[in-house]
Amino acid sequence: MTERALPPEEASRLQSAATQHLWMHFTRHGDLPETGVPIMTRGEGVHLWDADGKRYIDGLAGLFTSQLGHGRRDLAEAAAQQMGTLEFMPLWSYAHPPAIELAERLAGLTPGDLDRVFFTNSGSEAVETAWKLAKNYFRLTGRPGKHKVISRTTAYHGTTHGALSITGLAGLKQPFEPLVPSTVHVSNTNAYRASELTAGALEVTDEQSLERFGRWAADQIGLAIEAEGADSVAAVFLEPVQNAGGCFPPPPGYFQRVREICDEHDVLLVSDEVICAFGRLGHMFGAEHFDYQPDMITTAKGITSGYAPLGAVLASERLMEPFLQSGAMFGHGYTFGGHPASTAVGVKNLEIFESEGVLEHVQQHAGTFRSTLERLLDLPIVGDVRGEGYFYGIELVKDKTTRASFSAEESERILFGFISKKLFEEGLYCRADDRGDPVIQLSPPLIAGPEDFEEIEQILRHVLSEAWTLL
Amino acid sequence: MTERALPPEEASRLQSAATQHLWMHFTRHGDLPETGVPIMTRGEGVHLWDADGKRYIDGLAGLFTSQLGHGRRDLAEAAAQQMGTLEFMPLWSYAHPPAIELAERLAGLTPGDLDRVFFTNSGSEAVETAWKLAKNYFRLTGRPGKHKVISRTTAYHGTTHGALSITGLAGLKQPFEPLVPSTVHVSNTNAYRASELTAGALEVTDEQSLERFGRWAADQIGLAIEAEGADSVAAVFLEPVQNAGGCFPPPPGYFQRVREICDEHDVLLVSDEVICAFGRLGHMFGAEHFDYQPDMITTAKGITSGYAPLGAVLASERLMEPFLQSGAMFGHGYTFGGHPASTAVGVKNLEIFESEGVLEHVQQHAGTFRSTLERLLDLPIVGDVRGEGYFYGIELVKDKTTRASFSAEESERILFGFISKKLFEEGLYCRADDRGDPVIQLSPPLIAGPEDFEEIEQILRHVLSEAWTLL
Repeated sequence: MTERALPPEEASRLQSAATQHLWMHFTRHGDLPETGVPIMTRGEGVHLWDADGKRYIDGLAGLFTSQLGHGRRDLAEAAAQQMGTLEFMPLWSYAHPPAIELAERLAGLTPGDLDRVFFTNSGSEAVETAWKLAKNYFRLTGRPGKHKVISRTTAYHGTTHGALSITGLAGLKQPFEPLVPSTVHVSNTNAYRASELTAGALEVTDEQSLERFGRWAADQIGLAIEAEGADSVAAVFLEPVQNAGGCFPPPPGYFQRVREICDEHDVLLVSDEVICAFGRLGHMFGAEHFDYQPDMITTAKGITSGYAPLGAVLASERLMEPFLQSGAMFGHGYTFGGHPASTAVGVKNLEIFESEGVLEHVQQHAGTFRSTLERLLDLPIVGDVRGEGYFYGIELVKDKTTRASFSAEESERILFGFISKKLFEEGLYCRADDRGDPVIQLSPPLIAGPEDFEEIEQILRHVLSEAWTLL
Repeated sequence: MTERALPPEEASRLQSAATQHLWMHFTRHGDLPETGVPIMTRGEGVHLWDADGKRYIDGLAGLFTSQLGHGRRDLAEAAAQQMGTLEFMPLWSYAHPPAIELAERLAGLTPGDLDRVFFTNSGSEAVETAWKLAKNYFRLTGRPGKHKVISRTTAYHGTTHGALSITGLAGLKQPFEPLVPSTVHVSNTNAYRASELTAGALEVTDEQSLERFGRWAADQIGLAIEAEGADSVAAVFLEPVQNAGGCFPPPPGYFQRVREICDEHDVLLVSDEVICAFGRLGHMFGAEHFDYQPDMITTAKGITSGYAPLGAVLASERLMEPFLQSGAMFGHGYTFGGHPASTAVGVKNLEIFESEGVLEHVQQHAGTFRSTLERLLDLPIVGDVRGEGYFYGIELVKDKTTRASFSAEESERILFGFISKKLFEEGLYCRADDRGDPVIQLSPPLIAGPEDFEEIEQILRHVLSEAWTLL
């Protein structure tokens, strides 16, 4: 595909400018490849191309974002048309047609009475909004002490100060402390590490012990609420399938038990679906997929399939009621939140989900994605393959029997020094992560099918087999 | 202009959907006009149209954002073209051409060595990023105790938890406390209220006393740093012209003195230019306009003239140095930050600034904008007209001699109950604000000229004259 390469002098100019001026996100600038910053220039369907014209299969949907795949003219046209009509108007006491349209459509798709839509620019901003809304709601309804948040260890909820406080990754937080002083973290649902998480009390070996572990994990939330005092707790933030750590699905019954606990203590349940909404698990929302009723859903990423920045909080009508009184106001907002072009893209995105049967496509092929990835379990380095829908984590171990994980040195040398680079070299764009135990994260565009899964599995098999020889 | 009206059944459908599903920003939903949510549908140049086809002159540039005016096809086309090529790629260890291009161009325009660009989606996210960067920088360079921020009373810096902590508006913060526990607020530079701010010690009557007040206000920052302990303070966040409270320009020498104080105490100076960059004051950056050298500039809004969501932190090369070491990383990022479409629009926006001489246009007409607005000083209700470039605040009083401000009841009845609604009815889109004393905020698109200023002044004169009779 060299016809897609940039002219060499252009590529070299961009490389030099990137090196001198661009501060990338979550990037170790001192450890970039010798060839410099990888520059991506083009996308089409499930593929990406770099400045050299080299093709990659997108195993990550950009970053859990590109639900409909790359380079679609229809979504680009929706944005351009809106920009030519009304390119900007803030939602500060005013409204505009695409934000209204998208709010109405989303309200029609959410589970239960999540009929109110507050738009943001990002997932971090959505999480910030949901927390502030929870605090303000309890203040207006006579329970001003309820302000704390319970979330889970290793869970990522964003990087702004509030969202970062909810995040359960100590290493990400420490350089920036003190943060907002009212978050508490409880166990996640990493069934593969159940024994470690429960200090040896529980091990997951079958469906029954998995349910027992789920009950235990849900009850940790109840215990935390009681320890903090229910009068001080506003909300619980949980992803349907937790991403950081490498895809922890909820054990059967987990969310149903969490809902009971939240009801018992008058605590709001926020389903953080920045990743899990818009078909990632095969349903429009993760809460629908696992059949529970949250009080709010936070979302972003797939809401536009990545074609424009947008996030949203989808809130229960009950939460808005006190804000509908004369004189009341949720004193919160973002200039670009619900941007006309972004919401116009959001509307078109939902139309395409329907006209092209995207959810049905995921439901049809999710089983094949799972079984294709599970073939990798025959490799000695693959400890666990877990996930749901088009969203998987592959946990790497150095001993399958003991489940022994990599040391820090091995993580550095094998996961980042070899696997991550080699997968990219072999043409698979995905993500190696050691925020918990070392994992490969996979989340292809929702238009991917069995042939793409095969290609992903082949590259993983080849690279992981070679990695094993380096341990 | 009724040919621009929506069909009545369409307008009515949108109104009903907005009322049921859209949660607007900073909006008192219980106090919306009887006609419902104002729905804006179209923009062109300095004008906006609502769903009824009624035309408004945009006196606020959307929200200090629409530098190049509304409805431009060239900016829409830049976005669409990028979306059709590479519509999304995160800057997480990878880069793409439009983000690199824009970073390079911005670096070429910033004052001094602000050569590093970290992209975000919004101004709030830019402020969050700058604070985190300051904390992380001091930690990496052996001064981990430096984490606090000094900012000014009544100043607005955003609504995410970190940015809100820096914000100096108690009423905006209280419903969400506790926030990040390390911000301190000192006096702003409201020269019209110098006597109140200095407890009667200083009054501004001429250039000399203005300079004295500026020196006093700058020294408050030094005193706060000493009171907190310089070892605990990371940064000072200041807008070139403070918006909330109604446009407080810096007295002569203010920023030069602040720079000295920051150098003395090894504290970073962050110029929060979410509003004041991109020509708002007649220069590309506010720091350039007032001739001071910040360590970081935070920006958003005008960076795309509002055509797509984008923000950025422009940082000194010196701040990046410790992050260029092997193993080091600024552990921070946003999925949509530096979005390809947004940065492509940002590049085109800067091209148009140059090709159409936008800065020169503002410099040429800023004096006329000022003198046109100053004519309003003959009205008894107008206490002060202040600002810079295309950015002004008009402070309302009930007694010009004593400078007595409105009571809460009067603010409610006159400012919001009458003036705000009436200005909109009369065809002027701008903003009435009482976060400090009651003000009208004006910030037209940078393409506006003397005829537009006349129209704005006429409507203001008419409405403010009538308001006076209601006091």
